[in-house]
Amino acid sequence: MSAQLNTRIVPLQDTRITDKFWSGFSKLVRETVIPYQWEALNDRVADADPSHAIRNFRIAAGQETGEFYGFVFQDSDVAKWLEAVGYSLATHPDPDLERVADEAIELVIAAQHKDGYLNTYFTIKEKDKRWKNLTDCHELYCAGHMIEAAVAYYQGTGKRRLLDAMCRFADYIDSVFGTEPGKLQGYDGHQEIELALVKLYEVTGNERYLKLSQYFIDQRGQSPHFFDQEYDRPDYERYWSEGKGQRPNQAYHQAHVPVREQQVAVGHSVRAVYMYTAMADLARENGDESLLEACRRLWKNTVEKQMYITGGIGSTHHGEAFSFDYDLPNDTVYAETCASIGLIFFAQRMLQLEAKSEYADVLERALYNLVIGSMAADGKHFFYVNPLEVWPDASRLNPGRHHVKPVRQRWFGCACCPPNLARLIASLGQYLYTVEEDTIYTHLYVGNESTVSLGDRKVALKQEAELPWDGRVKITVSPERSGRFTLALRRPDWVRGELTLLVNGKRVDAASVVRDGYMMLDREWGPSDQIELALPMEAEWMIAHPQIRADLGKAAIQRGPLVYCVEEADNGQPLAALSVSLSAKLETRFDESFLGSGAVIIETDGWQDDYGDNRFEAGIPYRPMQPLRKPVKLRAIPYYMWGNRGEGEMAVWLRVRD
Amino acid sequence: MSAQLNTRIVPLQDTRITDKFWSGFSKLVRETVIPYQWEALNDRVADADPSHAIRNFRIAAGQETGEFYGFVFQDSDVAKWLEAVGYSLATHPDPDLERVADEAIELVIAAQHKDGYLNTYFTIKEKDKRWKNLTDCHELYCAGHMIEAAVAYYQGTGKRRLLDAMCRFADYIDSVFGTEPGKLQGYDGHQEIELALVKLYEVTGNERYLKLSQYFIDQRGQSPHFFDQEYDRPDYERYWSEGKGQRPNQAYHQAHVPVREQQVAVGHSVRAVYMYTAMADLARENGDESLLEACRRLWKNTVEKQMYITGGIGSTHHGEAFSFDYDLPNDTVYAETCASIGLIFFAQRMLQLEAKSEYADVLERALYNLVIGSMAADGKHFFYVNPLEVWPDASRLNPGRHHVKPVRQRWFGCACCPPNLARLIASLGQYLYTVEEDTIYTHLYVGNESTVSLGDRKVALKQEAELPWDGRVKITVSPERSGRFTLALRRPDWVRGELTLLVNGKRVDAASVVRDGYMMLDREWGPSDQIELALPMEAEWMIAHPQIRADLGKAAIQRGPLVYCVEEADNGQPLAALSVSLSAKLETRFDESFLGSGAVIIETDGWQDDYGDNRFEAGIPYRPMQPLRKPVKLRAIPYYMWGNRGEGEMAVWLRVRD
Repeated sequence: MSAQLNTRIVPLQDTRITDKFWSGFSKLVRETVIPYQWEALNDRVADADPSHAIRNFRIAAGQETGEFYGFVFQDSDVAKWLEAVGYSLATHPDPDLERVADEAIELVIAAQHKDGYLNTYFTIKEKDKRWKNLTDCHELYCAGHMIEAAVAYYQGTGKRRLLDAMCRFADYIDSVFGTEPGKLQGYDGHQEIELALVKLYEVTGNERYLKLSQYFIDQRGQSPHFFDQEYDRPDYERYWSEGKGQRPNQAYHQAHVPVREQQVAVGHSVRAVYMYTAMADLARENGDESLLEACRRLWKNTVEKQMYITGGIGSTHHGEAFSFDYDLPNDTVYAETCASIGLIFFAQRMLQLEAKSEYADVLERALYNLVIGSMAADGKHFFYVNPLEVWPDASRLNPGRHHVKPVRQRWFGCACCPPNLARLIASLGQYLYTVEEDTIYTHLYVGNESTVSLGDRKVALKQEAELPWDGRVKITVSPERSGRFTLALRRPDWVRGELTLLVNGKRVDAASVVRDGYMMLDREWGPSDQIELALPMEAEWMIAHPQIRADLGKAAIQRGPLVYCVEEADNGQPLAALSVSLSAKLETRFDESFLGSGAVIIETDGWQDDYGDNRFEAGIPYRPMQPLRKPVKLRAIPYYMWGNRGEGEMAVWLRVRD
Repeated sequence: MSAQLNTRIVPLQDTRITDKFWSGFSKLVRETVIPYQWEALNDRVADADPSHAIRNFRIAAGQETGEFYGFVFQDSDVAKWLEAVGYSLATHPDPDLERVADEAIELVIAAQHKDGYLNTYFTIKEKDKRWKNLTDCHELYCAGHMIEAAVAYYQGTGKRRLLDAMCRFADYIDSVFGTEPGKLQGYDGHQEIELALVKLYEVTGNERYLKLSQYFIDQRGQSPHFFDQEYDRPDYERYWSEGKGQRPNQAYHQAHVPVREQQVAVGHSVRAVYMYTAMADLARENGDESLLEACRRLWKNTVEKQMYITGGIGSTHHGEAFSFDYDLPNDTVYAETCASIGLIFFAQRMLQLEAKSEYADVLERALYNLVIGSMAADGKHFFYVNPLEVWPDASRLNPGRHHVKPVRQRWFGCACCPPNLARLIASLGQYLYTVEEDTIYTHLYVGNESTVSLGDRKVALKQEAELPWDGRVKITVSPERSGRFTLALRRPDWVRGELTLLVNGKRVDAASVVRDGYMMLDREWGPSDQIELALPMEAEWMIAHPQIRADLGKAAIQRGPLVYCVEEADNGQPLAALSVSLSAKLETRFDESFLGSGAVIIETDGWQDDYGDNRFEAGIPYRPMQPLRKPVKLRAIPYYMWGNRGEGEMAVWLRVRD
């Protein structure tokens, strides 16, 4: 294990996002998403699926009577919301919001049992079934989310109420699970507790939590299989089907073999990436080479063979799961928002293990395309499934495509995605830098002001960036005192050819200092040293790997970190009637008024099939004819902005004519 | 209503298939399929799903003890087999087969109740539930199939045992169902009885059966909805789900509105076309204009907007159903064999109502492509789902494509399709001609010797045809005595430009005598008059209607009635890497040894994507590059022959480059 073991992220409080592009999202999350989601959790959003999540806590706390309602993991929506609030308060104190959150925390604690146990479903509805169905019932998953909330809230506010409560819960969990005689040798069907316990360890220093996380990871997939043992218990009943139901599919839960033996990403994609994240955490914390090797292998399979160009993962809605290598259908896709958020977690942890820009490239891709695309411009509508091709009629009328929604929804019965997005954007500051001994890695070009501790030296960094519309970046480095250290700047995978890098106005030969995708500026840094970076950002035609059948003969447009798409609103329908030439110029133009925030719009000369009048008027819909076409100007918009102008067709991949 | 009301088909006994192409299929059905399916019905096929159908009858007849096994409609497999045997015996007497069938018929009759009722499921398993769940339980469907069997067996052998038994059953059904007080105002969830009762009427002359059929058709979809009334009964339970289950989806059963008000084809596709067939029968028998209008409308919607180029219908496996206009995905397709067989029934009935070649064109398309393609060359393996694009790995590993099998199966738990195919091919002689007053319509060019009654004159027809490989047809007309009548010869929709038509060696201007797609040869016919027809049969590139998104930018190859496809065995994989030019010549060549029977193979110059070595070796699978390609010779085979050379990719639609 290399020196990267000492790599760490920069605490959220030490980074203030000042970015033109991202400030908008941060503000939206702070001012709209977080308040809106609180209303949703309290069932005060009209025309939206009810949540009942807060009421469940009230009922469990004995403050109200009623029945449990919602999914077995409904508690986690409150946890993710509290986590988002914790992040938000870390950078933007807000006494009103803090008061609401404090009250919510008191409610959560009021619903906690004396022994530390917390779960409203099992408190209200299945009192005697605690830990009886780990396969299906998300008890440790909910625990993990509340632990993450507790850590974030403590880090954001300094308040320990929830943290202490969750330590009690974690201590109790530790007393229940493990390999010691009398303990339950189980693990959760939905991974999450594993990465949460590492965070709890990091903030408390209590190694018991790290060991418990390691236990869950090591135990998973061991023989005899825990889920089989559960299933074979006479009183066992599946939660998601009637009665005994089917024997659990181990691979769905990534429990088919021990984690170190897993070769490819399989099963439910969110569970997978949450698990990989914890594996990377443990590899880092424990210097565990075999775990790191498994992480590298699973990363490689995920991003090289099972990832959409938007950073989406999970090809099928059956089990919200990976299917198999190169099977990336654009229309029946799943690509759940949470899965790409989990992929970002995994990428962040891999960056802490080894500073290779490939991790940050994928992180940036998922973030700028799928993740922010899952939220409407109004911050109040969300995608759960993020397709690359939409035909609204098919979404409505072909049951195999019902899961693909042509417009974002106000809320979901299963509302895992919107609060997950909120917590990610609220904690964006944690994804910009990692620090390793005397090197500060810059992974994302997002305007910010940060203070980074480098050994016993504090370094103030001010970054001004124009991404994703322009590649100009200015970084002002102001160490407390002058001295030698390295500033490592990521060279994004979308940069072709030469880029311009100036330090205090003097050109640096960028190519000569690149290592693992980072330009290593190893020098004596003094007060207000200035770095200027001009990342060439050309719109490009992208093609897919020759085994990805869904994309063969097609091309997508990408510019910088942004993937583009065409919409019916600009190009008519059917979009499949459009074709393009890869030698056609991609003309870019900043449209200041586009969707209010403005965007670089891309136009290109293409064709639209045109069969003339009436040639298909009657008879069967097949003809021996040459398709005609007329030249048209195609208009592409950033993928993340699709679906904000009413319902219509959308496509990322365009048919290539030549 | 026009004079077509007197149109009739030619009895099966009066036609002997002598065709090179079809004799092979007839022989296969007679010598392999019928015996093989008898073995299957008796559970004597190794490695195949058990049928238990014959055992169910034995148990119901009290000749054996045991439990009912199989689908609630398992009886219908025996019925369809008996029907196929009836057809086969009509043209190819076979005492051994007849003895086996007679025994099977005695077994069926032994299982019949004194009151005429027959259904092994309700006899063995749910004694008290007769007529309690029409929505789900296929009682009248099974009755209909046994009635069809009885009619066919009577017509084929002159034996009335089963016919009399089924008249008793029909009489009993008539006493149960109807609008009269005290009768059940219901109808079956799966249409079939309606068309069967028309056949029973036609063979017995008993109008009661015609009226009962009319009742079922007229009652369907009336308010209050019968399926709702069933569902609202306190003791009602759905058959296909646990307990009460969901309220029936009326449209799935084509019971959402009365049949005359139905605008588009919806729901389960087999049910739909069986119903349309009965509607057309009743329109003909009763001169029912409003029913004819509905038939025309539903025909038009089905074949113009919801039919695959192979003659397949049903775009989704969810409910084995139609989805909506122009939604014809090639990969997640359903296109059940039975549905195209039902479409052929519907076409045949429409031809009896109005002799327009468009009906015969679709009939021919479904027959020569999907229907015969559903059976392996060995007559022992079958497709239930008939895709237009197959990626075997996806069939295995993407659950949304599990229903698409890359190779034909030995038998099915739900084995509706193989015996349906057997009965269709065994009765092919009924689809060649219709006779209307003084006109004999020739719908299919299939070698045969027939005797057709035209008024009080018998006309012997001898047809020699080379289809589907060559368009030469020779018809010898030998009336009992000379006289004037019309021989109407279909001009297939795949004929372009001029065709050659000679009568006794003299050229006839074909274009001038065409009416509704038939060349009307109205003349004095004498002994051994000869017609020679040369139908130009050029391989053609076909394109799809501009609203069929799945096929845009693609083309398929068709030659005469045959649709072609490419297979991995000839063209490597992925097939999506191939592209073609519509200006490339389609070279045809008869390969005598292909799959034993020989076939016209089509080759054309196309391209295969070729990215060179290693250009996608590592990293994410998207690149800014121009796809390279190399010229290749593409090899296409008739669609009906696909999947006979092991497992591999297959595609009907090919990407068009220019």
